[in-house]
Amino acid sequence: MQSITFKPIGIIHTPFKEIGDMPIQPVAAEGVRGYIELFPEYAEGLSDLDGFSHIMLLYHFHKNEEYKLKVKPFMDNEERGLFATRAPRRPNGIGLSTVRLISIEGSILHIEQVDMLDETPLLDIKPFFQRFDNRHKTRAGWLEKNKSRKPGGMLSDGRFGG
Amino acid sequence: MQSITFKPIGIIHTPFKEIGDMPIQPVAAEGVRGYIELFPEYAEGLSDLDGFSHIMLLYHFHKNEEYKLKVKPFMDNEERGLFATRAPRRPNGIGLSTVRLISIEGSILHIEQVDMLDETPLLDIKPFFQRFDNRHKTRAGWLEKNKSRKPGGMLSDGRFGG
Repeated sequence: MQSITFKPIGIIHTPFKEIGDMPIQPVAAEGVRGYIELFPEYAEGLSDLDGFSHIMLLYHFHKNEEYKLKVKPFMDNEERGLFATRAPRRPNGIGLSTVRLISIEGSILHIEQVDMLDETPLLDIKPFFQRFDNRHKTRAGWLEKNKSRKPGGMLSDGRFGG
Repeated sequence: MQSITFKPIGIIHTPFKEIGDMPIQPVAAEGVRGYIELFPEYAEGLSDLDGFSHIMLLYHFHKNEEYKLKVKPFMDNEERGLFATRAPRRPNGIGLSTVRLISIEGSILHIEQVDMLDETPLLDIKPFFQRFDNRHKTRAGWLEKNKSRKPGGMLSDGRFGG
């Protein structure tokens, strides 16, 4: 099947320079600020976005190139199928984080709850809408035991490189 | 900035051959079945996924190539900034849908609530986990007025090609 080429639309800046000891999800990054530098040629597309409290970012896991189809994910010590995990090394290294939008100044977006590396290439921004994006009464397999886990326990370690 | 190349990991099969008259989101596609044909070389990565009731699909909007930075989105008649909408024509045409996982047989995944075109190239599968992915007390700008809209009103038309 034909390959697909994407071009970053901006860069995500965060406090995280190394893969270890990072929040593994936005929910573990309460209060952690970062910002998006959207390339100016896309700034017109930001109109009306300031009405949203949360935005979904799609980005490239740019430091994670190899992958295995079985991995020991964060928050577990057993090997799991890669697609049953959120591990960053994947056949197509696309990350997804729903972060809080604080403010927009020109083509800079100030955001909170960042859980990605500094200098991460941004691929897309989508508005978060509860009516579309929340799900209830779900089952979450091996992750279920972490349902009530405190965010403090959700940090990365060196297992996917660092 | 350097471009990034992805290779589809499978194909999503749905009842929708044309862009018009489709559900615009999974919540508008209750009961609509489809299936994923994961390429067999990735099947090992499906272990443990059957414990999840919902999965997030990232895929390529393969029929939507041009884009504008201002669009009249479905469910509105005013022009909005593209990044404040879920319109399929985007600088990087990556779609995101959280669908219900019904069953897995080998490298075939039976799914429900499909809102994408037939033959859509699949880029990634991530497990949905309420603790990570739901958000509460959000503000949703121009979309807010559709908070209680019935799924029957959420169908596409020809505005993004068809």
